[in-house]
Amino acid sequence: MSLKAYENLAKGEQLPLETVLANLKTDDAGLVAAIAQQHDTGEVLMLAYMNEKSIRETLETGQVCYWSRSRQTYWRKGESSGHRQSLISMSFDCDGDCILLQVDQKGPACHTNRRDCFFFKVEGNHVVIDSAPEKQS
Amino acid sequence: MSLKAYENLAKGEQLPLETVLANLKTDDAGLVAAIAQQHDTGEVLMLAYMNEKSIRETLETGQVCYWSRSRQTYWRKGESSGHRQSLISMSFDCDGDCILLQVDQKGPACHTNRRDCFFFKVEGNHVVIDSAPEKQS
Repeated sequence: MSLKAYENLAKGEQLPLETVLANLKTDDAGLVAAIAQQHDTGEVLMLAYMNEKSIRETLETGQVCYWSRSRQTYWRKGESSGHRQSLISMSFDCDGDCILLQVDQKGPACHTNRRDCFFFKVEGNHVVIDSAPEKQS
Repeated sequence: MSLKAYENLAKGEQLPLETVLANLKTDDAGLVAAIAQQHDTGEVLMLAYMNEKSIRETLETGQVCYWSRSRQTYWRKGESSGHRQSLISMSFDCDGDCILLQVDQKGPACHTNRRDCFFFKVEGNHVVIDSAPEKQS
């Protein structure tokens, strides 16, 4: 499946959410990639994966729920750490295999306790660690 | 592979780029996800995929090159459309399965001629098309 059939709709036109969910271009495991972006600063925090059920739960509860590929279970972000992601808005991309989540991230998004996951920055022939873990509160 | 062995390095520490490339957590097709973000506005433009060779080409040329999963070939962004992505910086995430590209995107990033690919926005039980294609110049 894909959202390609709908890509030429004009700005302001609507589709039922169910139509979009039924046409997502999931991988063999039923997943799509999901990017979490801090809604007010624009920081890209992390990339994770969602299945249809985690998308529905996120929309219903307003708290971001992923599917953990490593643990093969639902991953309610911040459930154990307290570093919750509250959903501000959700958008699907043109072909329906990626989601952009605008979120309000409480504390660090990364499991290393850094604000975001993208701390290996290329500098010439090296990669520099460009952020430090936040202090535990 | 994964970058997990390096995640506790302190801010400012360095690794050889070759070490990082050798430890990326690629999928079965040798790919990692790559998010393109407009460097000055923070807009998340698109998600695509890169293999090691396309990462190297991007770093060497300063023009973003993806691997197209649908066409099974290198995809030099903007080569036919003129809508090039110039690389500003490249960062890898904590586990090494995602890249954040800070880019300077000329014109629309989306093949629909919209600025970005995330134009299917959830509004309650509907999805609204929230941007229009840019005028062809």
